Amino acid sequence: MRGDFPKAIRWENGELWLLDQTRLPHEVVYEQQESAEQIHASIHALKVRGAPAIGIAAAYGLCVVLKPFIDLPRADFIAELQRQADYINSSRPTAVNLQWALQRLRSVADTAEGDSESLWQTLVIEAQAIHAEDEALCRGIGVHALPLIRDGVGVMTHCNAGALATGGIGTATAPLYLAHEQGISFRVFANETRPLLQGSRLTSWELHCAGIDVTLLTDNMAAQTMASGAVDLVIVGTDRVVANGDVANKIGTLGVAILAKHYGIPFYVACPSSTIDLSTADGTLIPIEQRDSSEVRRFGSHQATLSEIKTLNPAFDVTPAELVSGIITEKGLIKPPFSSGLAALFDR
Amino acid sequence: MRGDFPKAIRWENGELWLLDQTRLPHEVVYEQQESAEQIHASIHALKVRGAPAIGIAAAYGLCVVLKPFIDLPRADFIAELQRQADYINSSRPTAVNLQWALQRLRSVADTAEGDSESLWQTLVIEAQAIHAEDEALCRGIGVHALPLIRDGVGVMTHCNAGALATGGIGTATAPLYLAHEQGISFRVFANETRPLLQGSRLTSWELHCAGIDVTLLTDNMAAQTMASGAVDLVIVGTDRVVANGDVANKIGTLGVAILAKHYGIPFYVACPSSTIDLSTADGTLIPIEQRDSSEVRRFGSHQATLSEIKTLNPAFDVTPAELVSGIITEKGLIKPPFSSGLAALFDR
Repeated sequence: MRGDFPKAIRWENGELWLLDQTRLPHEVVYEQQESAEQIHASIHALKVRGAPAIGIAAAYGLCVVLKPFIDLPRADFIAELQRQADYINSSRPTAVNLQWALQRLRSVADTAEGDSESLWQTLVIEAQAIHAEDEALCRGIGVHALPLIRDGVGVMTHCNAGALATGGIGTATAPLYLAHEQGISFRVFANETRPLLQGSRLTSWELHCAGIDVTLLTDNMAAQTMASGAVDLVIVGTDRVVANGDVANKIGTLGVAILAKHYGIPFYVACPSSTIDLSTADGTLIPIEQRDSSEVRRFGSHQATLSEIKTLNPAFDVTPAELVSGIITEKGLIKPPFSSGLAALFDR
Repeated sequence: MRGDFPKAIRWENGELWLLDQTRLPHEVVYEQQESAEQIHASIHALKVRGAPAIGIAAAYGLCVVLKPFIDLPRADFIAELQRQADYINSSRPTAVNLQWALQRLRSVADTAEGDSESLWQTLVIEAQAIHAEDEALCRGIGVHALPLIRDGVGVMTHCNAGALATGGIGTATAPLYLAHEQGISFRVFANETRPLLQGSRLTSWELHCAGIDVTLLTDNMAAQTMASGAVDLVIVGTDRVVANGDVANKIGTLGVAILAKHYGIPFYVACPSSTIDLSTADGTLIPIEQRDSSEVRRFGSHQATLSEIKTLNPAFDVTPAELVSGIITEKGLIKPPFSSGLAALFDR
């Protein structure tokens, strides 16, 4: 099977369709988004997820919501734009890309000429630009990481930094889709990523859809799989890379990095350069968010233990720079030492 | 709360009661075992599990089954014993302790004097001896490991090498129950142990029942929890220790050992000396059993991914001796180098 990667967001003939990721992988359902309330709910309920994908969905969503107002006077249309953008922005208060994408549409409206209808056309073009830029970022990451995917390699990944989280071929998955396109033969090991199982629900599904050879593992099988010699490199995504090269990512990433170091397996991090935060010196300054403890006590709908059992539930961990072999952005592959390499990325 | 550890097996007034571990932790139900078919089914369905516990249950079970035959002539009684022992032994063909315990009862019957009724009494005494010996083994391990549990320490464990798997206070858990008895204050981190979640279903439950401070983690939180400084030592059980000190145990143990090494945290293995197999030179000679792949795709009633997604499902992994700080048996704590230490254990 040689399929295509699944698209989280479709914009077709002025209609916005979102893949409902909460129903994956059991049901593949695209829902047309037709009102501000629906778009707000879709983002809030994680039907669309992943920072880039949320930004793109919000931008298109704002266009959908404003379509009925194109006959209004320009000032009234702009007032409506502000009101609707504020409302959509409230769907996930901490999502930076959401705010950033909506702000881009606001700014373009401020400077564009013409009546409400042409303003609306300008917003659509801007939303499409946000989407196309993200697609290009993903492809750029993929191009720089592609030399890592040699014929016959085994690649381990953790969580979902895939097509489903972006407007393109994902970040950690980008070189995998490109290598597959080029007919390179390789194997992926996807860790299931407890407690929320993004690896089993999303990553293994999207790679399988594209016809990539993917094997699902429970997180605690990573060491044995590496010991068996099946893993040649690890690629993960990240929520934030700080100035010294420390990497925050989904809980479990740190453990995979330590195992990779133990077995001499290179450990790579893939992200757009916008994920690099030079204003934070090192990973000790990143607070670790604790999520609701009930997630650890259950497995999907199955309650594995009693509700009085105490748990920890850190949402992510910080992998120290010394465990990272390289950081791959759309601008290129950065090798250690990261302090200078990351700074130079922004000086260019 | 200061409770007692839960007992997997109760022998009371000539009655055998087994805790149905398949219903834990949601329901705590002891089922009286009244027929050979029921005992066979209880062992087969993992209502009683753990090598020592299975052996004890089988020995008592044989006594229950033979009770109605105590009025038979001695030769007929012995024939019945052989027939019933063969039948119970077929409940889990690969369980060494099962065969071993039933063989002990057979041997004792061969050499004992008297009529069927007194023979039956002898069998009961032998079954109780098997149970008491296991209880003493557990306590012996606990005594030798107790100095490791100092006031204020954090202890990580993996899978269930607990009271529920034995006739006493478990192996890896033995020092925890003893330290708790002595009023030592410490904290346990129990990894959930995918795919079958023995950590969340069994270990966290049994320690919680006893009033021990236990925190449940998903397996991929072990690294972050160690990085936070909360873990001072790791203690796990084992299925087999070979001559050079390599240790086979539940999948995920190897990963925990590598993480512990990375953070300079001592990693201990607890087992009765009967678990040490000097006839196998090293861990590369232990074949890794692959279990049914569906276990990785689901837990209990919850299906996390599609049935066409490929998985690996190694039942256990092998931790190389160089990652092991000590092996604790009822005969004492063995430190590296293990080749000489383990051999010496059997020379004494």
